[in-house]
Amino acid sequence: MEQATKKTEPRNSVNGVNVDDLFGTIDAVKKTPVIAKFKFRAENQWIDGGHNRTTIKHFYGTQQDHKHKEPFVLDADEPPLLLGRDLGPNPVEYVLTALAACVTTSIVYHAAAKGVAIRSMESRLEGDIDLQGFLGIRNDVPRGFKDIRMFVKIDADAPPEKLDEIIQLGPTYSPVFDTITRAVPVSVKLEN
Amino acid sequence: MEQATKKTEPRNSVNGVNVDDLFGTIDAVKKTPVIAKFKFRAENQWIDGGHNRTTIKHFYGTQQDHKHKEPFVLDADEPPLLLGRDLGPNPVEYVLTALAACVTTSIVYHAAAKGVAIRSMESRLEGDIDLQGFLGIRNDVPRGFKDIRMFVKIDADAPPEKLDEIIQLGPTYSPVFDTITRAVPVSVKLEN
Repeated sequence: MEQATKKTEPRNSVNGVNVDDLFGTIDAVKKTPVIAKFKFRAENQWIDGGHNRTTIKHFYGTQQDHKHKEPFVLDADEPPLLLGRDLGPNPVEYVLTALAACVTTSIVYHAAAKGVAIRSMESRLEGDIDLQGFLGIRNDVPRGFKDIRMFVKIDADAPPEKLDEIIQLGPTYSPVFDTITRAVPVSVKLEN
Repeated sequence: MEQATKKTEPRNSVNGVNVDDLFGTIDAVKKTPVIAKFKFRAENQWIDGGHNRTTIKHFYGTQQDHKHKEPFVLDADEPPLLLGRDLGPNPVEYVLTALAACVTTSIVYHAAAKGVAIRSMESRLEGDIDLQGFLGIRNDVPRGFKDIRMFVKIDADAPPEKLDEIIQLGPTYSPVFDTITRAVPVSVKLEN
């Protein structure tokens, strides 16, 4: 009966994720793995001092280019304490944004795939940086984050003892968690 | 003479960076290294499906808490192809934003410290991800970026053969470049 009911529903949605589409995507990728190869892109324009602007317009996936509905424009700056004018989050705050968003989405999608409904979820993150690295004062101090901690509050349709298992779907599957915790090669080249 | 002239200027600015303040900061950190220990923070609220919202309000540095002039609010979502509604950049696009902004700012600040004036700078970035990882189809495929490439165009007060040296100040000093290219520990914990 439940099966029959589900089939008549136009959208089989859990956590706002259409799980029919999700399983359809998984099946399609299993058949044709090349469609899972994505290229994400960004363009940046320096404005002044610590102020610069990134535009996100398009990406590549399923063997073709795709445009976002509209370009996303993201300003970055430094606070006055770091010699900027505070016109946007600073670059490392964008890293925390990326991580927060990705771990959250990974929990939501993978919980949906398991049929676990999430009622609400919020998180806070904190990351430590010693600016002696960036300032070039000490070479033995890393330039970037030394450590990042994320704390997640979740209300889900699961017994309390299962909640940690659900939030660990985040670090298990999150592309940004993986990008930060693994050493990813980055090249920076001059273009004429 | 030049020295005397500079002293009468209220702001000794190169590339929009007050280099007197920059060298002042470096001297202060050398004397009292603990002031260079920063904590950056973010809060995230899940909304629905791939849509969630990060708020950046405050950070810790120079042994005290600091508030941004106003909170920065950043929405993330997935494009329809990845089962979202395209209401914001997706998390890995935020990683590229962070990297673009940080490499750019690192070039600008360190060129300023060297007295190299930059007239204009722009960049484009591309990163490869195979979504077989995120989808849990193959465990030998990384979930995150396999490789990221950044291409920088710069017009600076330097001979052409020195331009690559200037842009390499980015990867040399950028906290986000370091965070991505080094394995940084991240913990994700349930909070009651």
